[in-house]
Amino acid sequence: MRQLIRGRVLDFHADPNETADNHRFWEDGAIVIRDGLIEAVGDHADLAEPDLPEIDHRPHLIMPGFIDPHIHFPQAQVIASWGAQLLDWLQNYTFPEEARFGDPDHAARIAGLFLDQLVANGTTSAVAFCSVHKTSAEALFTAAHARNMAMVAGKVMMDRNAIPEVHDTAQSSYDDSKALIEAWHGKGRQRYAITPRFAITSTPEQLAAAGALAAEHPDCHVQTHLSENLAEIEYTLSLYPKARDYLDIYEQNGLLSDRLLLGHCIHLRDREIARMAETGSRAIFCPTSNLFLGSGLFDADGLRDAGIVSGVATDVGGGTSWSMLQTLNEGYKVMAMRGQKLHPLAAFHWATRGNAMALGMEDRIGTLAPGSDADLVVLDARATPAMALRSERIRTLSEELFILQIMGDDRAVAQTYVAGVAQKGPSDAAIR
Amino acid sequence: MRQLIRGRVLDFHADPNETADNHRFWEDGAIVIRDGLIEAVGDHADLAEPDLPEIDHRPHLIMPGFIDPHIHFPQAQVIASWGAQLLDWLQNYTFPEEARFGDPDHAARIAGLFLDQLVANGTTSAVAFCSVHKTSAEALFTAAHARNMAMVAGKVMMDRNAIPEVHDTAQSSYDDSKALIEAWHGKGRQRYAITPRFAITSTPEQLAAAGALAAEHPDCHVQTHLSENLAEIEYTLSLYPKARDYLDIYEQNGLLSDRLLLGHCIHLRDREIARMAETGSRAIFCPTSNLFLGSGLFDADGLRDAGIVSGVATDVGGGTSWSMLQTLNEGYKVMAMRGQKLHPLAAFHWATRGNAMALGMEDRIGTLAPGSDADLVVLDARATPAMALRSERIRTLSEELFILQIMGDDRAVAQTYVAGVAQKGPSDAAIR
Repeated sequence: MRQLIRGRVLDFHADPNETADNHRFWEDGAIVIRDGLIEAVGDHADLAEPDLPEIDHRPHLIMPGFIDPHIHFPQAQVIASWGAQLLDWLQNYTFPEEARFGDPDHAARIAGLFLDQLVANGTTSAVAFCSVHKTSAEALFTAAHARNMAMVAGKVMMDRNAIPEVHDTAQSSYDDSKALIEAWHGKGRQRYAITPRFAITSTPEQLAAAGALAAEHPDCHVQTHLSENLAEIEYTLSLYPKARDYLDIYEQNGLLSDRLLLGHCIHLRDREIARMAETGSRAIFCPTSNLFLGSGLFDADGLRDAGIVSGVATDVGGGTSWSMLQTLNEGYKVMAMRGQKLHPLAAFHWATRGNAMALGMEDRIGTLAPGSDADLVVLDARATPAMALRSERIRTLSEELFILQIMGDDRAVAQTYVAGVAQKGPSDAAIR
Repeated sequence: MRQLIRGRVLDFHADPNETADNHRFWEDGAIVIRDGLIEAVGDHADLAEPDLPEIDHRPHLIMPGFIDPHIHFPQAQVIASWGAQLLDWLQNYTFPEEARFGDPDHAARIAGLFLDQLVANGTTSAVAFCSVHKTSAEALFTAAHARNMAMVAGKVMMDRNAIPEVHDTAQSSYDDSKALIEAWHGKGRQRYAITPRFAITSTPEQLAAAGALAAEHPDCHVQTHLSENLAEIEYTLSLYPKARDYLDIYEQNGLLSDRLLLGHCIHLRDREIARMAETGSRAIFCPTSNLFLGSGLFDADGLRDAGIVSGVATDVGGGTSWSMLQTLNEGYKVMAMRGQKLHPLAAFHWATRGNAMALGMEDRIGTLAPGSDADLVVLDARATPAMALRSERIRTLSEELFILQIMGDDRAVAQTYVAGVAQKGPSDAAIR
């Protein structure tokens, strides 16, 4: 099946932080989709064919769908839990909530609602922590596979310091992860992430099991958390007294590589920064979460200058919004508080191609390159009265993007396409 | 005319930071309105009358309308201007934008849209900076008076260091302010605020003129800015080399009193804090603006402990949202970054009765006390799919309020009443 999506098309081919030649923009653009893949992108005048069905999203912007590289599937109902920093927040709210995901019916219901929220916000791929229960990962993969949506996910490994309902063991976490990898990794668009929650909730034996899994499955991602909160760091180092630093705990278990996604990375020591750069380990910036939990201000420019590749993510439910637009809004603010400037071109590159590169998946998602999966978001900078009023004064594409970045939310997402299939109901797009 | 508004009614009578006996809540509550004033509040069973018209907002929450004590009327189209801290932001974006308000037609159009945005967000009163042009204040007062909406506003006084299009003189600013006070202060619900923008844009002669106006009109508010940004402070002190500190500039001109509203107050010295407390001068916290412009983290608990009364405000267009809910969201985050906790009861008190007390207007607005103006906001914690999903887990009123605070925006405002008159179109309220 072929169709043409028409609109004002934006695509990045390089990082705006590195070069001025970073994007292509077609004011009257088109994307030709064949069987869920992008066949061509360019001017509408060059790509239109008499018998090719068209959906016209003008005057809205079309770009690659957003990628959310750090989100917790079982925390949809934990967002906005009051008054705690990280460790209390986990004990008081999150672990009890995650305990509910041992129920396959609950996990299946929330999996559907979770994906609904992603596409409502223009997010077409995510890297998700599931609960400790194998069933929770099965529920998420099943739902994502049914929608043909590229999901990277894994069951959390955690065998101590939580509550018994969400504890596994080193052996069971190895076995369950292994079984999930065999069942789901590479099935359609699903990919597995080996997921030790963080050093506090894993025994040394469990981290060794995670390392064994990573060695046995070098094409799987590994995701965990690093240096989010000062109390977390102190507690972590007390549990691993021989470690040189927090990162060293993961390093000693063979987890460092360009497949490792490290959530937060706020309070890093110099050795950790150097070692992350050397090993290609990724840092994932979670601005709404970092502000909400009072964790600290991520040093985006500093880590980039040190050679570390970063992603930017919602971190629902420590994060307060499902929206990558709101995430970029608060990302701008966190960087502003550090005297750094997040340009809208850099921001939208980050949420698309940048995050795809952080995952090493830029050959499949994050750009409009022919051959990529046709995951798209359609954005309307006039979606609300306040945005429309502000948008009267737009003079440049960057200004339009910045209004979306600072004032946008799910209302600004006019449509989301996953592998070429529209996910939202009737919009103002014209179909002929 | 009498009518009854039914819903889940919340009203504060004390500050949750000070006492546990701070609010009343009626699960099936009612507010009786007569001629735009609150006649009674209580249980619906006690207040219903056979022939009294009712509007039923259950299951939504009804509370006093929000008060926004620091907002810039001419900056509706400046929100989300990229990449600057305060002084550059003013020069590059704000002063040119404000220059447009010399055109009475433009000012009148934006005045209507400005009030539309306030009521769409549940804000029923605001304290607004107008542009330097007398016509801009006339436009705002005219529009607010026509809606019977309590507005405190003033034309900005600024006679240097901006651009010529928005400069007045010490004498003309005195004359124009005086004429506006005579025309508008006390007319219906309108009140005047004497408005020297800040020390940088006023000559000593102009600040003396502002002090003369304040002495001649002790029932007018005075609004200005204080210690928002480190570069601003340094520049200010270079312009007033004899001042002991930034606050002293205003003090020497007789501006300190409990009618003085000082926007930002982030980087205060000990003497300034003590002197603000002694004189009753108010500090206004503008969280979305402070983060957006990278200004700094307001010390809410510290200033309260020092005896200073604070308000919380949007500061549109340095602020990024018209919504007091979003403002409380980022207020929570700023305080979290300081290790402080903004409880939802304290937050909603702050946006209503707390801000009314900062203005010394708690006898008229900010509570549901009989005799007050019937300015109300109706809030729906299930307004969006993400909120509805989260709200399945609500167990307490505080949790419901916190979901509104962290996840809410204008969609959570089901209705707004100004002096008893509904401002939004048809809602799901039942009318009989």
